[in-house]
Amino acid sequence: MKKLTACLLTAITLTMAAPVMAQFSKPENAIKYRQSAMFMMSQNFGRVAGMAAGRIPFDAKVAADSAAVAELMSKLPWAGFVAGTDLGKTKAKPEIWTNRAKFDDYAKKMQAEMSQLAVAAKSGNLDSIKLAVKATGAACESCHDDFQLN
Amino acid sequence: MKKLTACLLTAITLTMAAPVMAQFSKPENAIKYRQSAMFMMSQNFGRVAGMAAGRIPFDAKVAADSAAVAELMSKLPWAGFVAGTDLGKTKAKPEIWTNRAKFDDYAKKMQAEMSQLAVAAKSGNLDSIKLAVKATGAACESCHDDFQLN
Repeated sequence: MKKLTACLLTAITLTMAAPVMAQFSKPENAIKYRQSAMFMMSQNFGRVAGMAAGRIPFDAKVAADSAAVAELMSKLPWAGFVAGTDLGKTKAKPEIWTNRAKFDDYAKKMQAEMSQLAVAAKSGNLDSIKLAVKATGAACESCHDDFQLN
Repeated sequence: MKKLTACLLTAITLTMAAPVMAQFSKPENAIKYRQSAMFMMSQNFGRVAGMAAGRIPFDAKVAADSAAVAELMSKLPWAGFVAGTDLGKTKAKPEIWTNRAKFDDYAKKMQAEMSQLAVAAKSGNLDSIKLAVKATGAACESCHDDFQLN
């Protein structure tokens, strides 16, 4: 447990460096990269959320593994939000680049909540998972409300 | 360095459990999941390969970070190769499911090579990176030759 937590923290530190990797050969790849990370995160988060809501039978191991991958994925989309990628096949609002500090705050908040969810899922306590899912979902939603086109 | 390696190994162990998570609500999501993982891996691997080939200026930190993310991503596509997902918007050949042992061997080989690349990139030695890129690229290609439609 401690080893895993230490590992995830190292992974976080590692992947927080993602913005320095913002080297895509074309804007479409940056867009597809962030969308891929968001999709993979949502698939893993959605599985845990489904269990929290009783739509999917609760499986503690699957929940823990899925939340751990969701946490890792939560670090990766940001590298794709490079300047000049508000056009094209994207639902990203231009405000991301004109109000970047607010966007970054939302991003950090979501990552923190997703980390909490990973901890809760690792504990195997469904009540803790339910609370963490709710907080994480709210963090996703507040950012989408402000920065994602419908 | 040791901490990072230990972390990556833990992450690998963690994510090797991915097949148990093969719980997608519909086949399209499984297909999109594996394609997303492959795309994110290819973007990170491609950046390192570009440096190895001299197409992109060598930056040791970016190479190390990119290779580390590519290694993590190399563990994730497999969860998406669930039964019944050889149809639809995919280039996956049906042989993946009729000759799964061979496919899994290729998958393991690629992950091992990608791990070697991450080690080489962490070392910062461009010659080691070039060798590891070559071996990893060959591992990708041999599997694509047999199991991916053109």
